[in-house]
Amino acid sequence: METNVKTTPFMQEKGETNRGRLLVKCPDRPGIVAAISKFLSDFQANIIESSQYSSDPEGGTFFIRIEFDCPSLEEKKAALEADFQALAQEFTMDYQFTYTEDRKRTAIFVSKEPHCLLELLWEWQSGDLPTDIALVISNHEEARGMVESLGIPFCYIPANKDIRKQVEQEQIALLKEHQIDLIVLARYMQILTPDFVSEFPNQIINIHHSFLPAFIGARPYERAYGRGVKLIGATSHYVTNDLDEGPIIEQDIERVNHRDHVADLKKIGRSIERRVLARAVKWHLEDRVIVHENKTIVFQ
Amino acid sequence: METNVKTTPFMQEKGETNRGRLLVKCPDRPGIVAAISKFLSDFQANIIESSQYSSDPEGGTFFIRIEFDCPSLEEKKAALEADFQALAQEFTMDYQFTYTEDRKRTAIFVSKEPHCLLELLWEWQSGDLPTDIALVISNHEEARGMVESLGIPFCYIPANKDIRKQVEQEQIALLKEHQIDLIVLARYMQILTPDFVSEFPNQIINIHHSFLPAFIGARPYERAYGRGVKLIGATSHYVTNDLDEGPIIEQDIERVNHRDHVADLKKIGRSIERRVLARAVKWHLEDRVIVHENKTIVFQ
Amino acid sequence: METNVKTTPFMQEKGETNRGRLLVKCPDRPGIVAAISKFLSDFQANIIESSQYSSDPEGGTFFIRIEFDCPSLEEKKAALEADFQALAQEFTMDYQFTYTEDRKRTAIFVSKEPHCLLELLWEWQSGDLPTDIALVISNHEEARGMVESLGIPFCYIPANKDIRKQVEQEQIALLKEHQIDLIVLARYMQILTPDFVSEFPNQIINIHHSFLPAFIGARPYERAYGRGVKLIGATSHYVTNDLDEGPIIEQDIERVNHRDHVADLKKIGRSIERRVLARAVKWHLEDRVIVHENKTIVFQ
Amino acid sequence: METNVKTTPFMQEKGETNRGRLLVKCPDRPGIVAAISKFLSDFQANIIESSQYSSDPEGGTFFIRIEFDCPSLEEKKAALEADFQALAQEFTMDYQFTYTEDRKRTAIFVSKEPHCLLELLWEWQSGDLPTDIALVISNHEEARGMVESLGIPFCYIPANKDIRKQVEQEQIALLKEHQIDLIVLARYMQILTPDFVSEFPNQIINIHHSFLPAFIGARPYERAYGRGVKLIGATSHYVTNDLDEGPIIEQDIERVNHRDHVADLKKIGRSIERRVLARAVKWHLEDRVIVHENKTIVFQ
Repeated sequence: METNVKTTPFMQEKGETNRGRLLVKCPDRPGIVAAISKFLSDFQANIIESSQYSSDPEGGTFFIRIEFDCPSLEEKKAALEADFQALAQEFTMDYQFTYTEDRKRTAIFVSKEPHCLLELLWEWQSGDLPTDIALVISNHEEARGMVESLGIPFCYIPANKDIRKQVEQEQIALLKEHQIDLIVLARYMQILTPDFVSEFPNQIINIHHSFLPAFIGARPYERAYGRGVKLIGATSHYVTNDLDEGPIIEQDIERVNHRDHVADLKKIGRSIERRVLARAVKWHLEDRVIVHENKTIVFQ
Repeated sequence: METNVKTTPFMQEKGETNRGRLLVKCPDRPGIVAAISKFLSDFQANIIESSQYSSDPEGGTFFIRIEFDCPSLEEKKAALEADFQALAQEFTMDYQFTYTEDRKRTAIFVSKEPHCLLELLWEWQSGDLPTDIALVISNHEEARGMVESLGIPFCYIPANKDIRKQVEQEQIALLKEHQIDLIVLARYMQILTPDFVSEFPNQIINIHHSFLPAFIGARPYERAYGRGVKLIGATSHYVTNDLDEGPIIEQDIERVNHRDHVADLKKIGRSIERRVLARAVKWHLEDRVIVHENKTIVFQ
Repeated sequence: METNVKTTPFMQEKGETNRGRLLVKCPDRPGIVAAISKFLSDFQANIIESSQYSSDPEGGTFFIRIEFDCPSLEEKKAALEADFQALAQEFTMDYQFTYTEDRKRTAIFVSKEPHCLLELLWEWQSGDLPTDIALVISNHEEARGMVESLGIPFCYIPANKDIRKQVEQEQIALLKEHQIDLIVLARYMQILTPDFVSEFPNQIINIHHSFLPAFIGARPYERAYGRGVKLIGATSHYVTNDLDEGPIIEQDIERVNHRDHVADLKKIGRSIERRVLARAVKWHLEDRVIVHENKTIVFQ
Repeated sequence: METNVKTTPFMQEKGETNRGRLLVKCPDRPGIVAAISKFLSDFQANIIESSQYSSDPEGGTFFIRIEFDCPSLEEKKAALEADFQALAQEFTMDYQFTYTEDRKRTAIFVSKEPHCLLELLWEWQSGDLPTDIALVISNHEEARGMVESLGIPFCYIPANKDIRKQVEQEQIALLKEHQIDLIVLARYMQILTPDFVSEFPNQIINIHHSFLPAFIGARPYERAYGRGVKLIGATSHYVTNDLDEGPIIEQDIERVNHRDHVADLKKIGRSIERRVLARAVKWHLEDRVIVHENKTIVFQ
């Protein structure tokens, strides 16, 4: 966790500079795959990975994620995107091109408990999170040393219910200034207002410390203890304006028993939270998650 | 599943005829283990397995399950139980002696879906459920052939909301007549009335097809699909008069994804239900489950 | 498990009569997906599911499995296959069309322990194994009643080392006569000779009762007990002439501890074997498994 | 991971100063539990947790671990241990008293890969590893910054095959000087000689990056990839003079598939190694592991 620990920048891996991704959502009908793959083939793009899903082969919605390798991608980008418009129109597509060279910029929000932040920093240092961590924002000072030792700016913004509006304005200004693409709530214990959330649709990932929809809201471990469950879990989801009701990206659980008191559940829970959040963030960064209605399609 | 498949009767295993179990619940204080183990030692009983739990070492409730081997147990039973009363009084114990030779008598309730019933019959035939399956009760005829081919009485009792009272009286009469110790609801899709439940406290085990407390009530797979969860589960619990709120014995889950429609969730769910119910029933039959308030202590 | 239990024939599900699958293996190069999807599109075939894998984007082997829905498939089959030859030649493809209407014909081999056979029959009756179980062959009589009660022919062929050659000739004759596509060794405790194996390349699936490559060969549970492992497992693989060395299709494990003696490991192991074999067989029947060198690509 | 992150010293938890543990191994016979529990009761020690195991109720070896709370334990220790000798002699016991106040002193050995070291430091900082980490020894300099920032001495001792003898003498001297009770090989990539190992019997814990006994020896991930396994694992075990053959404490696995190349297996493997090693070390520190022949009894 020291600056002398060499990081493995994701982008330096062989061939990544010519790597792109195309995400498409459109009404299902025959011929979509043929059209897209011919289009890419005409640009000499080689399909590396392709995943598709149809909500219902007869009249549902079709989703596809294609990862491709294209020589001289940098020079072809403009033409690629321009030419795709006709095809998109023909099939009424929602679509998005992304390029691994253009790393997403992430801000992490944290309160007192550092375990989720630490896991993300750890994964990032190991080269497993393809992003620039541009900023850590906290309503506590605890994590400053660790964050700054990695060369990441740390912004201390005290927060409470009474000054929420003003705090969020300050946060939004910072996020805009740093051109943030993704906000990760790594156990940030403040509620976000609809105004804040609407600024970043499907761009805020939270970790909730229960297997939703069980134990929505506060103090889930205490309530899990009270109910005598034999499994506890964690859920990572996009933030919407319905508390803990946003589209679920990933969940996991561990087994507990009658010997585990609330403190034990929290301890076990921390390790679930760490891995569930890290997976969800990784999949988002690799453009593997498509939100559809209130669910996610995750192309692992 | 034919009568010519040889069953392995649990009781014929070596030494089991002298095997007993003692379950104790009492206020915690020093000296309980010493007193009990001295008592058993004085009867030449050798402790084979012992598990204990204290809800709080300072002033909580103490629980212990002891499995012991005692030569000539049959002849000593009466003296053992009589002499224990003094000790029990001294420590204000709730307690219970059971003997593996006295197999519990089980009734299984089932509706149309046979998978949980089949799993229990399978485990029982393999010698893994130490019980006499005395009776299968169903509001459908589907399972009759399979049940009767194993030499188990099958009782068809049509049921619906309007005749619930009368149906339950008939069921209770049958259960009493067959001296039933345990009722397993193996996907029995009728609600039991408080009158029925109060006849069999902590003697009715149900399987609910969700990881409670998520999706209490009807159609949990449909609701899991609607919420877009990434895990589905099943829960086995004792039946109380609060729907799906009784003490949980066992839970388990499996991973699902966006490709899994309701029919897939049901299919995956069936295999979870089978193993969760089988484990809970087995633990109950081996006297490994103690109910305390609305939770279970399970001494695996 | 009685004949009066209604089976759910897989093929009667809506739309299945027009469902086909294409499996392709060829040298990787740009344009394969475009060519195949255009080809299918020209036949009005709608791609329902598509999975691909490239062993190395630069110069490796490319694999794709496409499931498609094609109106009037029965009438178009001949043209589809004939026309595909040109494309296959251009890309040097190994390929195979299969149709869900043409159910594979399966023979199950079993010895004394019935649990794997029972699981397969159970899954088959539930409609989860899309195959015709044409034959059960055993060197013991135990399973006859159960098998015949389902209307499946049961062939008792006693076997031992000394008459192996003659036994296998009899078995091969039966398998040819019944036009068997898949042989499942559901705990069949006889070794097959190279002559037998070479008759059915990548068509024989075995279940080995350890997580290979640990405990290759005989008595794996005894050896797992001796080593004091904390996990035991099972492995389903295609049979080759190297004992327990064929391509692995699926593996799973369960946790054990010091209390579990050999008999316990066997009991726990049975439930792992059941589910591992059932999954492997299902994936094979759905054409989800491609063998490449000594490994499998499984498009789940 | 900075010095300003407050650590939660395990010992400051309420009541721990009077907490002791007794581990016993002896020939099984009736009356052992009675004798021990009476002995503890006579010292006013309250049994908090008790776990026992008998390798064979008729003539096997009996094992028990008792955790007890005893007022004024510090003053009674000497008498407790002196008086127990008579009882130990009567039952031919191997036994050991430990006290949570006397924290074990741990040395961690590491080479280049820091993930296991980091996990142990993380758990230790969270108060989950009840030990004093007295020393980190490495044959590389990479981890120095991180270790020293936590106030732990870091000893760089270059090592290779040719100077093994001299390196180990230096290490042993350091370990003796620091009064080390436990050595953790957290991916230390040097082989230890029998002389070194014999100095610390059952005091050296290693993490091997496969599910032993599969892939004993070097390059297990490469060999797992070559074999095409569908699960990879890690194993924590005590070090003996037979390479990777020592008593296994803990194992775990994760699922992999054909898409995972060697680099992916290593990445996934790192997270298995982290948690398997952390669990094994924790159980050892809590005196939950008893070595018997070449196996472990783990009283979780």
